[in-house]
Amino acid sequence: MKIGLAQFNPLIGNISGNCQKMLGILRQSKAEKVDLLVFPELSLTGYPPEDLLNYTGMFNEIQWAMIELALETDDDFAVLVGAPSLNEGPGKPWFNSVWFLAEGKIMNLIHKSLLPNYDVFDEDRHFESGPKRQPIFWKGSSLAVVICEDTWNIEPEKPRYHRDVLGEMREVGFDLILNITASPYHQGQHKKREEMARFHAVRFGKPFVYVNQVGAHTSLLFDGQSFVMNGLGQVVLQLQACKEELRIWNSNAVSEPPLENRYNEMEVLYQSLCLGISDFFQKNGFKDAVLGLSGGIDSALVACLAADALGPKRVHGILLPSKYSSSHSISDAEELGKNLGIQLETLPIQKSVDSVEISLGQHLLGRPADLTEENIQSRIRGVLLMALSNRHNWILLNTTNKSEAAVGYGTLYGDMCGALSVLGDLWKTEVYALSHWINRNEIRIPESILTKAPSAELRPNQKDSDSLPDYEVLDAILKKGIVEGLGANQIIELGFEKELVHQSLNLVHRSEFKRFQMAPVLRVSPRAFGSGRRMPLTFKFPDFE
Amino acid sequence: MKIGLAQFNPLIGNISGNCQKMLGILRQSKAEKVDLLVFPELSLTGYPPEDLLNYTGMFNEIQWAMIELALETDDDFAVLVGAPSLNEGPGKPWFNSVWFLAEGKIMNLIHKSLLPNYDVFDEDRHFESGPKRQPIFWKGSSLAVVICEDTWNIEPEKPRYHRDVLGEMREVGFDLILNITASPYHQGQHKKREEMARFHAVRFGKPFVYVNQVGAHTSLLFDGQSFVMNGLGQVVLQLQACKEELRIWNSNAVSEPPLENRYNEMEVLYQSLCLGISDFFQKNGFKDAVLGLSGGIDSALVACLAADALGPKRVHGILLPSKYSSSHSISDAEELGKNLGIQLETLPIQKSVDSVEISLGQHLLGRPADLTEENIQSRIRGVLLMALSNRHNWILLNTTNKSEAAVGYGTLYGDMCGALSVLGDLWKTEVYALSHWINRNEIRIPESILTKAPSAELRPNQKDSDSLPDYEVLDAILKKGIVEGLGANQIIELGFEKELVHQSLNLVHRSEFKRFQMAPVLRVSPRAFGSGRRMPLTFKFPDFE
Repeated sequence: MKIGLAQFNPLIGNISGNCQKMLGILRQSKAEKVDLLVFPELSLTGYPPEDLLNYTGMFNEIQWAMIELALETDDDFAVLVGAPSLNEGPGKPWFNSVWFLAEGKIMNLIHKSLLPNYDVFDEDRHFESGPKRQPIFWKGSSLAVVICEDTWNIEPEKPRYHRDVLGEMREVGFDLILNITASPYHQGQHKKREEMARFHAVRFGKPFVYVNQVGAHTSLLFDGQSFVMNGLGQVVLQLQACKEELRIWNSNAVSEPPLENRYNEMEVLYQSLCLGISDFFQKNGFKDAVLGLSGGIDSALVACLAADALGPKRVHGILLPSKYSSSHSISDAEELGKNLGIQLETLPIQKSVDSVEISLGQHLLGRPADLTEENIQSRIRGVLLMALSNRHNWILLNTTNKSEAAVGYGTLYGDMCGALSVLGDLWKTEVYALSHWINRNEIRIPESILTKAPSAELRPNQKDSDSLPDYEVLDAILKKGIVEGLGANQIIELGFEKELVHQSLNLVHRSEFKRFQMAPVLRVSPRAFGSGRRMPLTFKFPDFE
Repeated sequence: MKIGLAQFNPLIGNISGNCQKMLGILRQSKAEKVDLLVFPELSLTGYPPEDLLNYTGMFNEIQWAMIELALETDDDFAVLVGAPSLNEGPGKPWFNSVWFLAEGKIMNLIHKSLLPNYDVFDEDRHFESGPKRQPIFWKGSSLAVVICEDTWNIEPEKPRYHRDVLGEMREVGFDLILNITASPYHQGQHKKREEMARFHAVRFGKPFVYVNQVGAHTSLLFDGQSFVMNGLGQVVLQLQACKEELRIWNSNAVSEPPLENRYNEMEVLYQSLCLGISDFFQKNGFKDAVLGLSGGIDSALVACLAADALGPKRVHGILLPSKYSSSHSISDAEELGKNLGIQLETLPIQKSVDSVEISLGQHLLGRPADLTEENIQSRIRGVLLMALSNRHNWILLNTTNKSEAAVGYGTLYGDMCGALSVLGDLWKTEVYALSHWINRNEIRIPESILTKAPSAELRPNQKDSDSLPDYEVLDAILKKGIVEGLGANQIIELGFEKELVHQSLNLVHRSEFKRFQMAPVLRVSPRAFGSGRRMPLTFKFPDFE
């Protein structure tokens, strides 16, 4: 049987548009004599549709699109499409389903049973868990169709769910496993997908076909990387990372050679971030990006990623020097701009800062400058960048990294402005690693940006290290506290300095309110700020003090 | 049996602090010969603890606190305390439980079975659904202990859940129903609670004791209003709205007279908003509030609520006039300030605005002023207010109303700045209604503020009605679209003008990105912006166009 793996990039909610794009892929597949064409999870609506599912008109549209798609099928050509279906019985309003289209009609619906409701996932919000299912039969083969999480109940010590979805189909038996998924990217995730697939492929001695969504919708980045694994657990077909693609696999092919060295972790990280930027712009109809260039590494890396994602001519780097800006910051930013070929412009901020300080009069007089004055500089930069954004429809990219966001080392409504946080899920140490990787063949980010000590340059001779631990240590503590959920004492027991641990966790605790108003973050880790980490804003927790 | 209803106000995460406060209430109850003292749902941790439950140290603390509380109990005095407990089996890591403490020890745990996972609720994220349970026995009575949602599966047409928790206890039988809850306030919600309680009280012919949390944690406002209903469905004991309280009810008392006219909907709305402000300040250790006073109704109402919640001396109203500010705006704001007794100050913005416009040079030259210039004014106000906030540790209150937030009629990083959105869940028409109610006995908000046409005053002679429909019509359309989930065509069929409907819904769609970065909103409706409405930011949905 010839199976078409359609690694599809939908636009959320755009049911008729996604359907039209699917129709093109259906026709192409038919022309290539595909027997069964497989689209990813919720590919008709895009994943996740979130509360668009509350709109009463949704189901009608889905149904019409399915009829249109089904009319393209026939006795030799079937299609599996992920899309919600209505739950008429008690419980949640929807099922997360695969629609089996064949012989010109809607043959069958298969409902997802294991619904993820942790991290960024909210499937229990809208979906009812599906009942025990049977394999489907097509062209003499028995196919175990599962949807994403259905095969992830594999933690031996404490299973997350009560059911073994593939095990439930063992009695009837099946010839291959088809996993229809929308699995978002994070670093290390693809390795886990393969381990999961290998577990089941070897367990049943059957091929495992994994069809993933590709594309980005603001925070969630879908990297694709769909694959076919044989019953020995060897990958025999591999689709690309971060690109839409249709590939055909013949299930009757014998002894395909296993593939090796199929991906480079750093390259997929880079591609995912670029995809996050380019899809955000393209799907929202945006053209140009603007960002402040400080001469530091964060804005340099964002400029580089944006130039690669959008083309350098559509990226506007704005230098916003104050009286504290060093000459090397300006020259470094200029060199970066030249290397990347982006648009450069300088807008000095000092006069506006002075004017605001004069307006504040007595509030600032007779006291040494402090955070108030530092924040005014940062916020005037925000005002200027947003004015450019408003005037030219340029979209402001935020340059805050995860370490800064974690400890609140950033100014709300200042350098925290932006429509999209590109680096908000990369620790400062990861920002350096990715920058070095980008420079691996040629110097794109100037060496001096990579080697100088980080500074916000909001007061004379300021360095990040004046108020923060070294980033190597800080990042290690933050990972323990934020990602692993360890408390202060547990982290101290691991050998970290007591004072630093308490200081760092306390900064995290005290800056929840800033992150609440932060731009959406491109998610590249299993614990990103945003919907993957939901914290109270008014609370007290001894472990953070 | 004497039952103590402890309408308790916890601080989220503060387990030892909440425990100490509970110990005081335990001792007071014992002195008053209470047989059974009842605290609300998750009262030891506060509700909702959200991802604090991911911290590994959490359970240890809960267990120690429970032992401390249990040691105060004896053969005559038992306590029910809501708190999470660990799920050792498959599934989610926690149960949402009631701990039954008596005879000096932890007697029993009762696990919540029906877990809300819609609107602002995320209980499936952390909690496993509890198994079928039995009533507990104490002092010769059989008590059906249920937790909040456990009794809300009462929609006859399409039940939300598959179980009837009270029905499951019918076989053993019970003498009264104890509902331990953390039910957040919204307008009209208390009426529904009574209807729910009446359904069960009459169904079983047994008293229904309802013990609710009180207090606010940023967005969610818990109004308390705990009560006891007799087996005829009549309320015989009623606790106050928005106040911590311990009340004792004797289950053996015969023929108590039913209470009537127990609350005024508008008064509870007002009290809830004040509680939202005062608890946000008190629990976070904040003292003073600051806000911009435009002379319009939104900032006037926020100033009034803040003055009542915090005391007028702790509220700083700042006039920030530009060249477009009318003289009546300034005099209205001054009169308001005088009426309320708050601190008033004027900081003109024009020079700072001019300075920013000069910095932008060629970007603004040779074109008529547009949204760019309007936003600069709004953002300079934000810079000045945030400078005051930074300098004096005053907390900035946001004054955006729900109608504005819905259509994006506000400037991100400008008038959308603020730590807490006080009116973000009140439609403009509700802002007027509440203001009139506040003025019912004496003029606190000047009449001219209530009667003049709303204007942002960002260009000459600007009126809201230049770019928006009348608020009466706009609010009606927005309620249909946002609260009821109707699409454009469905709203048009109800008789609204086609053009206005499409324009309004399109504005809602296009401003999702602004609300994503909005301050947390005091929630007073069943569909508030924030975690109660989760929308994609990159999407296309025909019903919104």
